[in-house]
Amino acid sequence: MPQLDRRAFVGTVSLAGLAGLTGSAPAAHTVEAAKPGPAEAAPATDVTRTIARYVVSGSYADLPPAVCREARRTLLNWMGCAVGGSRHEAVDAAISALAPFSGPPRASVLGRRERMDILNASLMNGISSHVFDFDDTHLKTVIHPAGPVVPAILALSEERTVSGKEFLNAMVLGNEVECRIGNAVYPAHYDRGWHITGTTGVFGSAAASGKLLGLSEQQMVWALGLAATQPVGLREMFGSMAKSFHPGRAAQNGLTAAHLAARNFTSAAGGIEGKSGWANVLSTTQAYGEITEHLGKTYEILLNTYKPFACGVVIHPAIDACIQIRQEHTLTGDQIARVDLRVHPLVMELTGKKTPQTGLESKFSVYFAAALALVRGSAGMRDFSDENARNPAIAALRDRVTATIDPSIKEDQVRAIVTMKDGRTFDKFVEHAVGSLERPMSDKDLEAKFMGLAEGVLPPDRARRLMELCWSVETLPSVGELAAAARVG
Amino acid sequence: MPQLDRRAFVGTVSLAGLAGLTGSAPAAHTVEAAKPGPAEAAPATDVTRTIARYVVSGSYADLPPAVCREARRTLLNWMGCAVGGSRHEAVDAAISALAPFSGPPRASVLGRRERMDILNASLMNGISSHVFDFDDTHLKTVIHPAGPVVPAILALSEERTVSGKEFLNAMVLGNEVECRIGNAVYPAHYDRGWHITGTTGVFGSAAASGKLLGLSEQQMVWALGLAATQPVGLREMFGSMAKSFHPGRAAQNGLTAAHLAARNFTSAAGGIEGKSGWANVLSTTQAYGEITEHLGKTYEILLNTYKPFACGVVIHPAIDACIQIRQEHTLTGDQIARVDLRVHPLVMELTGKKTPQTGLESKFSVYFAAALALVRGSAGMRDFSDENARNPAIAALRDRVTATIDPSIKEDQVRAIVTMKDGRTFDKFVEHAVGSLERPMSDKDLEAKFMGLAEGVLPPDRARRLMELCWSVETLPSVGELAAAARVG
Repeated sequence: MPQLDRRAFVGTVSLAGLAGLTGSAPAAHTVEAAKPGPAEAAPATDVTRTIARYVVSGSYADLPPAVCREARRTLLNWMGCAVGGSRHEAVDAAISALAPFSGPPRASVLGRRERMDILNASLMNGISSHVFDFDDTHLKTVIHPAGPVVPAILALSEERTVSGKEFLNAMVLGNEVECRIGNAVYPAHYDRGWHITGTTGVFGSAAASGKLLGLSEQQMVWALGLAATQPVGLREMFGSMAKSFHPGRAAQNGLTAAHLAARNFTSAAGGIEGKSGWANVLSTTQAYGEITEHLGKTYEILLNTYKPFACGVVIHPAIDACIQIRQEHTLTGDQIARVDLRVHPLVMELTGKKTPQTGLESKFSVYFAAALALVRGSAGMRDFSDENARNPAIAALRDRVTATIDPSIKEDQVRAIVTMKDGRTFDKFVEHAVGSLERPMSDKDLEAKFMGLAEGVLPPDRARRLMELCWSVETLPSVGELAAAARVG
Repeated sequence: MPQLDRRAFVGTVSLAGLAGLTGSAPAAHTVEAAKPGPAEAAPATDVTRTIARYVVSGSYADLPPAVCREARRTLLNWMGCAVGGSRHEAVDAAISALAPFSGPPRASVLGRRERMDILNASLMNGISSHVFDFDDTHLKTVIHPAGPVVPAILALSEERTVSGKEFLNAMVLGNEVECRIGNAVYPAHYDRGWHITGTTGVFGSAAASGKLLGLSEQQMVWALGLAATQPVGLREMFGSMAKSFHPGRAAQNGLTAAHLAARNFTSAAGGIEGKSGWANVLSTTQAYGEITEHLGKTYEILLNTYKPFACGVVIHPAIDACIQIRQEHTLTGDQIARVDLRVHPLVMELTGKKTPQTGLESKFSVYFAAALALVRGSAGMRDFSDENARNPAIAALRDRVTATIDPSIKEDQVRAIVTMKDGRTFDKFVEHAVGSLERPMSDKDLEAKFMGLAEGVLPPDRARRLMELCWSVETLPSVGELAAAARVG
């Protein structure tokens, strides 16, 4: 695949969500060559304490290089989303509602001038990072792992000195805790109606925050219990601002839980596994081994993925194919006679809208998306606009796109045939869409996405410096510098 | 029953909880002589909007006098619990953890010198009001209704001018919303492991707070949705400080939800009844008619009850009988040869401990409780102490108490026979224990309980003035005066 232009990655809200790819993530995230031995069933009475002990004892020195690399990529992707989403009306509304109650303004609201107390800042940065639904995804559970974790520890890093290594370690541990707890209850928990990012994210935030606060094992147990008793997020909220509230509030609740536990505010011993604990109350299935086994051997962050396009994953293959054809043959839309797509059934189910009239509707049209990709060569945050939905050139090509279900096409695949008015045809089969675990976005792709998101929010030199700080986070003596670089003014 | 001494009501934590009486509350809380007609099934699509419309339109002028009276009694009882609990180590821990992040100190932490922003103050006052488990109870659902509602609107009343009538109206509406939602899902929701005070309380706080903020109907729908997506409280936390965190956090979350909605931060239309809404996700049964029917005709606050003794409801009848015998015959413990109790089976199941050694254990001993009541004439917050558990006079009488299960004795009944060393016997049958719905605490009882709780926290003249302000709340031009009166210094 050619290097995609960074404009390709500047997107807006994705409502179709991740329905398409959730079944296809491979489980190969073990960093050691030898697979761990047969899983031992941990007694259900020790789940919370086991994961607490792991978090309290885990250090940066334990992290394999591949884990650190993926953490940096996650950080960069998250930072771009947070900066890019920072001017959304949901963020404006939340700040105007809650700023009057903010404490000492010690933490940055990324991409903006405001500073707030660390609890409120973690809420705001969690909202902005998810408001475009463009942040990272743990496809096994559809958790967006960074949203609840990074805002909490980034805010903490502005209030106290946290080194880059401590920061990255806390981030990996928080990611591990939330995704493992998610693995233990997915899909029953999600199917019941919980927005798993908020309900597990609060644990990730509590663990990562508690790590930086230096909690003892007992205090970490209490912090996880205080997280358990404050889950956030019903799926009913999808399609409203409340969806982005979930990772933000999870970050804030977890950070609150860690601070309470640090002052010996007690909770239960079995917040996760107790009879009336989180897993039993919020799910009908509980695979506790997913939480307690192979700790320090496998890392869920190695399964993290990043969206290249600002729409549901299900039409990523079609967009990918069309952008590739356009770039390989330097086409323009009016040279094209017709576009024929062979797609997975979910594409038609979720994105079969023929003549979208608004930017939001255009995200639900595979016809529009293919035309957009061929005419503009991008499918980013600003491409799914009301203006483009009504653009005559795109609409004309859109009406010449057909899409046919092909049972042999997998969820992250597409076959696109572009027939030119001069009779030439270009045939592109995408085996795995860009952004899937098998064909991850490259570091350069992530940089292009980041710059596209930061564009118009931060001056280009500031954006580049912020990007460099994300890549070099482990060398920073104090991560407060990173947060400050993402602030305006 | 003779007037109980106010010392009878100064209690500490009640762990046995409300197991005993939950089945016995009558449903007669209709204020109109004529029963409403047959219930119409409301479409499940309109539940959130229906209750939102009711809250937005309800005014003080609509409230029947009996409802206002019960609201004042609830307020007085809650205020005593909050002031009495304000020096508990859970409150100390929470304040020390979160005060560094507090915004402008505009609201009082009751019974203390600190002031905090209104969101943090509502958390702290919610914690202190529940930490002794001595607050009000809606026996139908075991919701403690005031804890999540009053702290939120009391804090709001310090930031803006809220008249006593507006305050009482908001309080009644918040109580109505949380208890009706509780009725719709009880007992399935509670049995699943949710601490129903926190999970429904967030709705009560959002409704009451939103009422004072003057939300439109649409904003109230959003506020209730934002409440739905932030439920607080797993029963696993019972026995830890996190239990009292639940009403506090529910108050804070509801107040946050109302402020967000006031700035048009959107949520779902069907936060309560949607497919992935609160009722479907958090419960297996949903009787929506309990929420939408007879609005303005029945009032759940008329079912509110108040605990006279600082222990589980199940041994209230025995304590009641012994205090009555002591007062009627001016006994002293050493004149008593033996005490024989006929009790409901739950008494033995929950409080059968023969020789308690600590204050906490003493709450689980019907033998100790009967001896305590006969020796001291009280069973309050400070009576269930380590010192009393080891007191020789009480222990000696305790060993002369027998308790026998009698199938004819109901949960709120007891028969107590005291045999004196001089041969006299005193036989007392309690038909309904004091504090039950059938034999509610009188206003004088509530005053005695209040003064006992406030003792040692506020100077007596301040305590009396606070009590008078609660009784006369509807005449206050600004309820901020009430909160200020409950502050120290």
